[in-house]
Amino acid sequence: MKVYADHAATTRLSAAAREAMLPYFDELYGNPSTPYALGRQAAERLFACRTELARLLGAARPEEIVFTSCGSESDNQAILSAAWSGARQGKRHLISTKFEHHAVLRTLEKLRTQGFEVTLLDVHENGIVLPSDVARALRPDTALVSVMFANNEIGTVQPVAEIGALCRERGVLFHTDAVQAVGHLPVDVQAMRIDLLSASAHKFRGPRGAGLLYARRGVELARLIEGGGQERGFRAGTENTPAIAGMCAALREASEHMEQTAARVAALRDRLIAGLETIPGAQLNGDRTRRVPGTVNFSFAGVEGEALLLMLDQRGIAAASGSACTAGALEPSHVLLALGQPPALARSALRLSLGEENTNAEIDYLIASVRACVEALRK
Amino acid sequence: MKVYADHAATTRLSAAAREAMLPYFDELYGNPSTPYALGRQAAERLFACRTELARLLGAARPEEIVFTSCGSESDNQAILSAAWSGARQGKRHLISTKFEHHAVLRTLEKLRTQGFEVTLLDVHENGIVLPSDVARALRPDTALVSVMFANNEIGTVQPVAEIGALCRERGVLFHTDAVQAVGHLPVDVQAMRIDLLSASAHKFRGPRGAGLLYARRGVELARLIEGGGQERGFRAGTENTPAIAGMCAALREASEHMEQTAARVAALRDRLIAGLETIPGAQLNGDRTRRVPGTVNFSFAGVEGEALLLMLDQRGIAAASGSACTAGALEPSHVLLALGQPPALARSALRLSLGEENTNAEIDYLIASVRACVEALRK
Repeated sequence: MKVYADHAATTRLSAAAREAMLPYFDELYGNPSTPYALGRQAAERLFACRTELARLLGAARPEEIVFTSCGSESDNQAILSAAWSGARQGKRHLISTKFEHHAVLRTLEKLRTQGFEVTLLDVHENGIVLPSDVARALRPDTALVSVMFANNEIGTVQPVAEIGALCRERGVLFHTDAVQAVGHLPVDVQAMRIDLLSASAHKFRGPRGAGLLYARRGVELARLIEGGGQERGFRAGTENTPAIAGMCAALREASEHMEQTAARVAALRDRLIAGLETIPGAQLNGDRTRRVPGTVNFSFAGVEGEALLLMLDQRGIAAASGSACTAGALEPSHVLLALGQPPALARSALRLSLGEENTNAEIDYLIASVRACVEALRK
Repeated sequence: MKVYADHAATTRLSAAAREAMLPYFDELYGNPSTPYALGRQAAERLFACRTELARLLGAARPEEIVFTSCGSESDNQAILSAAWSGARQGKRHLISTKFEHHAVLRTLEKLRTQGFEVTLLDVHENGIVLPSDVARALRPDTALVSVMFANNEIGTVQPVAEIGALCRERGVLFHTDAVQAVGHLPVDVQAMRIDLLSASAHKFRGPRGAGLLYARRGVELARLIEGGGQERGFRAGTENTPAIAGMCAALREASEHMEQTAARVAALRDRLIAGLETIPGAQLNGDRTRRVPGTVNFSFAGVEGEALLLMLDQRGIAAASGSACTAGALEPSHVLLALGQPPALARSALRLSLGEENTNAEIDYLIASVRACVEALRK
């Protein structure tokens, strides 16, 4: 049996996304910045995608959506924008959390070397950031709060709306890395008081090469990639219309069926959690219920996570020890360390992330395989 | 008749590129940074693409190719890398030319605000940079020379190998924006002594979303997009394997038939030049022979370029007044101003850029249409 259980790393392109992309390869291939018919057609479709994506995310205006090449780029641009804009007002304090994606953490590290002060909040044992911790960290010179919508390794969902309301009230910009949430959970940037949001198409069955950055009107964006005047000057480079069309189709499809898909995937997830918990020494990482539908993360005391992955691979199972972005690194997951796990236990982690195509039979195979591999490794 | 004559803006995806991409959408969709079979397969293909692209560009090692999302990103990263690396050695002088793409010029402007000194060389009436001008501008504190391989508006090809040899001899890094050259002209980074080179797949019938940056081993790269450890840490974000596979297939195909295609397209181009020259007041911009096979640029005294484009569009012709990246801007082309053209004449420019799919009949239609439109506009 082959089981793909690494949907948090990437997903298979959906048929709808694929169909949406194909015409742009050889019919609507015009450069959207050109004035002739072929270019205008591309520009019109691009605007239609921007409008629809804005609507799907609850944004007030299409122009609040900036197309980027990936989630990491969106994260980088959002954080640098807020920081530099803050600095111009004398605000050089940034707040985030210890378990953010490296696209956020490394950008913050870079800013630290540029004279910014960074407060990284604890996330507590259940992998949830407390709004009260955010409130306590806020200072008059705080330029930005960046808290991820859902964690990429353990799947816990953060109280984004509460943090958003808090930040709005205090006049501080709020960014959320929603790469693991968009397409899987309801996201409404206005209702949730989000100023900046990052998303990535290939995490919700859209294509690689398409990310988006929501920036509320009035939030000043910095340029990460200089050049032509595309994206109102905020992101140079010929617009990737096929990928953007694919992203739009994928999010439309995901949004239309979100409730049913989430319920179905969450049922698979809960079956998986229940099964894995019967393995001696298994420890579920992150809150039991406040998590994305698909993601499960366990530590298995006494087991080397990388060895477990190799054994599962031999059984046809695609799984992860943490983020694919840090795969191959020998350090224990910074996410699990942030949850207070000792390094040895953190090194034993297994992330299984499910999607709508997984089946009950696959879940049972996952449970039996993990059990067998954990037992074998402990011998 | 419909004539696409804006290949310098973007090209139709080739059948080979399309076929190369499709399997990555729903079979080989694994994230290349993951350790299981589906990820390893993707990583192997990625390495094969890197190896082949390195070979096609004359690079010594696959790891000298860094995949980016577009040509502009490559330009930004190349220039910032060389500048920051120079600054660490106390070198803060940068040399480029007045007719570079905005991805280069705006990055240089940004560096100017960071304390770098920038010398922009003249390009002379024929649109060619003189190596002797480069030599004269070199200083002990020069960190970088950046000269584009072929100009995107007028198509003139620069003496890259001479400039490369000069820079290598003087120990100065040499970057070339080869976005308009790769896939159209022979490029050999080692023979031409190129340290950094930018290219973009969609300019040679590859897909959007795939750019590359060649960086000779030993040249220190800066990170533009922080995050995961992809591309040896120099470019975060999940690798866009479908687009990279498409880029590789497109460059392979272009390279296999380069001589024949170039001869065929150059014959179309010369037919077009000969025809347009018979229009009264027509002036060919840029050197007559030292130009890429496909690009033709004329000024038509007394004609408004934008109006000409609209009339040509009504006749089914896709053409440009300059770069698509600056389309809609009302300023005259900075490229033509750099050639010494008065603003009014520069505003009358028309760029027609041909590809392998154009025909003699289309060329004759282009000539007749431009003649008719120019005459009508002058009335």
